[in-house]
Amino acid sequence: MPLKECSINLPDIQSAKPDTLIPINKVGIKNLKYPIKVLDRAKGFQDTVGEFNLYVDLPSHFKGTHMSRFVEVLNEFKDEIHVKNIKEILRKLKSRLSARSAHLEVYFPYFIEKKAPVTGVAGLMEYQAFMKAALFTRKFDLVLGVVVPVMTLCPCSKSISRYGAHNQRGIVTIQVRSKPFIWLEELIEIAEESASSPVYPILKRPDEKYVTERAYENPKFVEDVVRACASKLLQIEGIYWFSVSVENFESIHGHNAYAYIEHPSQCYSSESSISKKDAPHS
Amino acid sequence: MPLKECSINLPDIQSAKPDTLIPINKVGIKNLKYPIKVLDRAKGFQDTVGEFNLYVDLPSHFKGTHMSRFVEVLNEFKDEIHVKNIKEILRKLKSRLSARSAHLEVYFPYFIEKKAPVTGVAGLMEYQAFMKAALFTRKFDLVLGVVVPVMTLCPCSKSISRYGAHNQRGIVTIQVRSKPFIWLEELIEIAEESASSPVYPILKRPDEKYVTERAYENPKFVEDVVRACASKLLQIEGIYWFSVSVENFESIHGHNAYAYIEHPSQCYSSESSISKKDAPHS
Amino acid sequence: MPLKECSINLPDIQSAKPDTLIPINKVGIKNLKYPIKVLDRAKGFQDTVGEFNLYVDLPSHFKGTHMSRFVEVLNEFKDEIHVKNIKEILRKLKSRLSARSAHLEVYFPYFIEKKAPVTGVAGLMEYQAFMKAALFTRKFDLVLGVVVPVMTLCPCSKSISRYGAHNQRGIVTIQVRSKPFIWLEELIEIAEESASSPVYPILKRPDEKYVTERAYENPKFVEDVVRACASKLLQIEGIYWFSVSVENFESIHGHNAYAYIEHPSQCYSSESSISKKDAPHS
Amino acid sequence: MPLKECSINLPDIQSAKPDTLIPINKVGIKNLKYPIKVLDRAKGFQDTVGEFNLYVDLPSHFKGTHMSRFVEVLNEFKDEIHVKNIKEILRKLKSRLSARSAHLEVYFPYFIEKKAPVTGVAGLMEYQAFMKAALFTRKFDLVLGVVVPVMTLCPCSKSISRYGAHNQRGIVTIQVRSKPFIWLEELIEIAEESASSPVYPILKRPDEKYVTERAYENPKFVEDVVRACASKLLQIEGIYWFSVSVENFESIHGHNAYAYIEHPSQCYSSESSISKKDAPHS
Repeated sequence: MPLKECSINLPDIQSAKPDTLIPINKVGIKNLKYPIKVLDRAKGFQDTVGEFNLYVDLPSHFKGTHMSRFVEVLNEFKDEIHVKNIKEILRKLKSRLSARSAHLEVYFPYFIEKKAPVTGVAGLMEYQAFMKAALFTRKFDLVLGVVVPVMTLCPCSKSISRYGAHNQRGIVTIQVRSKPFIWLEELIEIAEESASSPVYPILKRPDEKYVTERAYENPKFVEDVVRACASKLLQIEGIYWFSVSVENFESIHGHNAYAYIEHPSQCYSSESSISKKDAPHS
Repeated sequence: MPLKECSINLPDIQSAKPDTLIPINKVGIKNLKYPIKVLDRAKGFQDTVGEFNLYVDLPSHFKGTHMSRFVEVLNEFKDEIHVKNIKEILRKLKSRLSARSAHLEVYFPYFIEKKAPVTGVAGLMEYQAFMKAALFTRKFDLVLGVVVPVMTLCPCSKSISRYGAHNQRGIVTIQVRSKPFIWLEELIEIAEESASSPVYPILKRPDEKYVTERAYENPKFVEDVVRACASKLLQIEGIYWFSVSVENFESIHGHNAYAYIEHPSQCYSSESSISKKDAPHS
Repeated sequence: MPLKECSINLPDIQSAKPDTLIPINKVGIKNLKYPIKVLDRAKGFQDTVGEFNLYVDLPSHFKGTHMSRFVEVLNEFKDEIHVKNIKEILRKLKSRLSARSAHLEVYFPYFIEKKAPVTGVAGLMEYQAFMKAALFTRKFDLVLGVVVPVMTLCPCSKSISRYGAHNQRGIVTIQVRSKPFIWLEELIEIAEESASSPVYPILKRPDEKYVTERAYENPKFVEDVVRACASKLLQIEGIYWFSVSVENFESIHGHNAYAYIEHPSQCYSSESSISKKDAPHS
Repeated sequence: MPLKECSINLPDIQSAKPDTLIPINKVGIKNLKYPIKVLDRAKGFQDTVGEFNLYVDLPSHFKGTHMSRFVEVLNEFKDEIHVKNIKEILRKLKSRLSARSAHLEVYFPYFIEKKAPVTGVAGLMEYQAFMKAALFTRKFDLVLGVVVPVMTLCPCSKSISRYGAHNQRGIVTIQVRSKPFIWLEELIEIAEESASSPVYPILKRPDEKYVTERAYENPKFVEDVVRACASKLLQIEGIYWFSVSVENFESIHGHNAYAYIEHPSQCYSSESSISKKDAPHS
């Protein structure tokens, strides 16, 4: 075995004792692009390209981790990487790197055939999707997320104007922790139903007429969209945490409008935060 | 002089003979951030931050250029960098690097106070601006450019729908070669007047009503906006080349609409292109 | 007052009752560019350009917030926006938008004059800096952060190779919560001292020799750099929370190496996480 | 046919007469993501995801183009989009949109299995690739391009230092016009052979030793790499135009080093430029 022979004479600096005995929360590789197969509700599987971050924790007494093993583990799963085997990948990472925790984050474009609302002309619609998974000694954590472009029409603009109403593309980002596993398609539907209108890859004139009128009849602030998503997510059995953000590329401004709901809240918009006990009070 | 003394004993690899005797069109530094003062029609000068690319050509018989001198030249001009001294900077680059040509590209955010159309409430509006300059043995070339966010309302959507019309934020990018020097403010006005409506940093309800109705009364395709800009630019004495592009973040699609006009055309949409004589014919 | 008059007849949709009675954690504006003056340890103040996110919370019974007021509040502080008046800005946002919490995030390039180590030739070095502040009913929270490019040389590569060692540019990101206020300059020094070598805007040959040899004598993994920063931060009186990440643009790979330490830990690499009690167990 | 029926009563604004009679060089859609199959020298085909820009020219007497047809044409080719059928796609675009010219630009990640130099451990290496094609009345133009990460070690740093030499990741971008068609793999090999060393997805210690020493024995400036690529490209029968750029993420600076060669030159670094005759002379 050339690998073994060669290695035998080379020092393993990574396993040496570090100068500073502080444990490291996450160490690994970032921005590794890799072709993957993900689960597709309609077709079983779909080919796409993932961008990966892979980390493990590092105890205080090890100087370094072995970076090459992260890619080797990914290779062993060929390109099959999805919610159903992600825990297995994390187990492999943990054991191969003798760590107590392992993290996998993957971001990928996901495609769904979408038909125009009137003519039915079909095209492929792209959504950004991601999975952020972690395996600890006693816990497996999986966050599933999707970014959905939608159309939003301003209720204020409509109500104060004699005609017309400013509208724009917005992006809805939904992240969930659920048990059992939930389909990306379900999250995408929630986002699209909560906006003034979905967006489409192809629209013929009759479709454009329909979408324009539907959005006008269905005005939504970012606040309305984020709340509509939240109320739908609250009704789904098995979702025990979610966050929703909506960002509008305002057609009347150079900046964006934004709204965010998280439930149950773990972010700094709550009072119950780490720094509360220590921080200087007003 | 420590610099001189130290250098004296160090080989100057850059001045050595290269392995391959091929002249290099451009060599230098990229993505250098630097605080700058630029000309401001209203205030004389404005402080902002520039991102610089600085290049010179390199004759076939020199192995390398001296990268540190690019930053040194920039330092000598302190932070005063604008259309009026840019040729002087290029001259310094040419002589300091004993080159026949020098290039300077700088991209910076530019701010203009903009009043809401009805209430007159003022705010600062940000535009991306840039200068691309080159000095050759017999020629000085300067391209001035600006990126302007605007509002566009779809004429088709308006004409086929009983009410409403999809609209969105679009960005207009104008580049010009002119003699004499033209103000960024002039280019920004051309872009904003050519769209369905300008966008604003602050709009109170009466302003939002005004902007909504104005855009509805003033529908424009990307094609209309790019042509309106082009016809205005054609009328400006002293502009001997320009390009205009308009990109709409379509509110009904996940992708963008785009239009581009260049005059006189030097791009590949013309027949008179380098590869024409050599390329395989249809 | 034209504003008052005009408004008087226009409905205030934002104050209407929403369809869904769910409170919103954050609502406001994103990606607003604005010129600012920030505190500079050497010069008192420095002019730069900030990119702002401004949010407040929204109680369940309000349909929408008033987006224009965010920019108006920013205007009132002209361009003076820094750690010393940030709480005042948040107070204004809270009262103006009758909210219980307000958030301000600002990202800006920050420049420090840096001298070459041997020749002393000076140039401006750019660092990305940011502040993330929040004001709640009983708490003020401020995170100060900076992104510092550094040089890292691989200990493994050095120890196993007859000559040379791969090295690369890495970026160190430090975030702290402290009382009292800490200078960006202090955080930057911590990052630069923890790496194999700082990076510089200008290096003459004697400087390049010095930096090359110093880095070779001072090899560091991302793990070493993140730990060195952490141990320095632990020693600073007044810092009650910090996070440090190091990302190496590995010169031998197309992907990056990464390490992260947070103390005390609030992230998912700890066991004490929200989903622990609910999540499916292995 | 619902489409026909519906359309029949809806005005076709796009075909109306524009206000301004100026021809448009390019009009179409931008940033459309679409899954594609591309040619793979080793496997025949490879699944990846493309980002498309599709344009046609628009004569002065047409107000607008028909945006939906661009996506429809793409759909007709399913996901098979590569150098061998790209001219056919452009023909379809031209006829469907009754234009005289059509443009297709597509950018996609491309994966090649790469073995570590000593241990032979294999992994997938990602390269950014692109095609920029145009079909005119008498001409078909195709530019094939690839972006290749490499390792570069500084000859100056090596020669002046007692030990070590700064090195970094650099990216080589090669664009060619050739007849006949050339493989992406050939361009990637040229870039990797021209640098101090290729980069790899997986390196075990013996490989890391090899790569470190090889780079040290093989120092290259950006100028050396760009020239080495150029001389190799000049020797390839059938390449009638190319450009090469090299950008180094300098490990000793926060900014990048850059070099560019184009042959035959059509860019502004040549004297023979449009503005020469009109531009103000020095």
